[in-house]
Amino acid sequence: MQEKFPITDKTEITRLPKRGVYDKVAVYSILDEALVCTLAYSKDGQPFQIPTGFCRIDDKLYLHGSVGSFYMRELAAKKNPVCISVTLIDGLVLARSAFHHSVNYRSVVLFSEAELVTDKSILYNALEVFTEKMCPGRWADVRKPTDNEWKATMVLAFKINEASAKVRTGPPKDDDEDYAMDVWAGVQPLKTVRLAPEPDPLLKSGVVLPSYLK
Amino acid sequence: MQEKFPITDKTEITRLPKRGVYDKVAVYSILDEALVCTLAYSKDGQPFQIPTGFCRIDDKLYLHGSVGSFYMRELAAKKNPVCISVTLIDGLVLARSAFHHSVNYRSVVLFSEAELVTDKSILYNALEVFTEKMCPGRWADVRKPTDNEWKATMVLAFKINEASAKVRTGPPKDDDEDYAMDVWAGVQPLKTVRLAPEPDPLLKSGVVLPSYLK
Repeated sequence: MQEKFPITDKTEITRLPKRGVYDKVAVYSILDEALVCTLAYSKDGQPFQIPTGFCRIDDKLYLHGSVGSFYMRELAAKKNPVCISVTLIDGLVLARSAFHHSVNYRSVVLFSEAELVTDKSILYNALEVFTEKMCPGRWADVRKPTDNEWKATMVLAFKINEASAKVRTGPPKDDDEDYAMDVWAGVQPLKTVRLAPEPDPLLKSGVVLPSYLK
Repeated sequence: MQEKFPITDKTEITRLPKRGVYDKVAVYSILDEALVCTLAYSKDGQPFQIPTGFCRIDDKLYLHGSVGSFYMRELAAKKNPVCISVTLIDGLVLARSAFHHSVNYRSVVLFSEAELVTDKSILYNALEVFTEKMCPGRWADVRKPTDNEWKATMVLAFKINEASAKVRTGPPKDDDEDYAMDVWAGVQPLKTVRLAPEPDPLLKSGVVLPSYLK
């Protein structure tokens, strides 16, 4: 594949351009680490947002929902332009001056339009990848969807047409004269951790925690 | 204040309406816990998104940026309708069936338009609240903005005109017949934790970690 997304009017990072990242591997790794994205679309000039789970396979994002979902049906039918973003927060950047406080983050903003997935093999695979992203090892363990459940599920694909990431890393940058101040400065890392699983109160007696959750 | 946001065409939760929350205290508490929001606006039918830090004071959100920020100047000048969302992920909901897998989350979607903050006392207060939200105790410790830094900073206020939250909590809900399956089910909680602060490599010798960061 091409290694970089083209820089377009929509994806060019104009504020702090040194934070702009167009490398596909980097963009994909941010998307793959994020559990949820925010999808935005516009209707008669009014923007709307939907926070939702998703997964990426190759150069497409996949979202699923109910066939009863109004916004999904609209997006599939009308091919409205959409903007999708994800944001990972890695740390608080504590500078000596209030002005230079910042956040270490990795975000992606991309542009696409919906494509209704009708091919069953793609649909099945997207749901499996989605489940495995949420909890690696889970798909093999659970009851697979019935025909009726598949019929109740809508999957939309969004080809990643245009995308860029914006990334800040590292310690604070203060004004030269502020480095002499007696103010602590540094980064407080933030991390999303998975805690010990809590069994369903209705869990069948004798069923033990699977190894992939330990 | 009124206790609930009115339910409007834009804020009514139509998918899984039992997850809809319109109570102001609940909506505000989700906003206050989230470090970043996603702001969406539309330009000639094309939606755009900006992930950004923010804080809430009373019934307004405050975002800040550089006076050189193109999108902030546009929003302030044109009063485009905006949609802002935040999402907190509390856990992975692991059901016995793939179909009933879900996520415990708390999200807010709200609608507003930008208002340029020119009153210095509001502007100063917003930056202080923003810094204190990021790191309680920090404001008193750091060098305050100079006149030139204030002049380089733009703050936009967004009155929370219409808002709703969507919240899922609790264990998985499986189909009745699936509860007899030998499949582990429950919730894996997710939590964002603050790790031990990492000093700036250029930290002045002898400056110790402040008590509010311990």
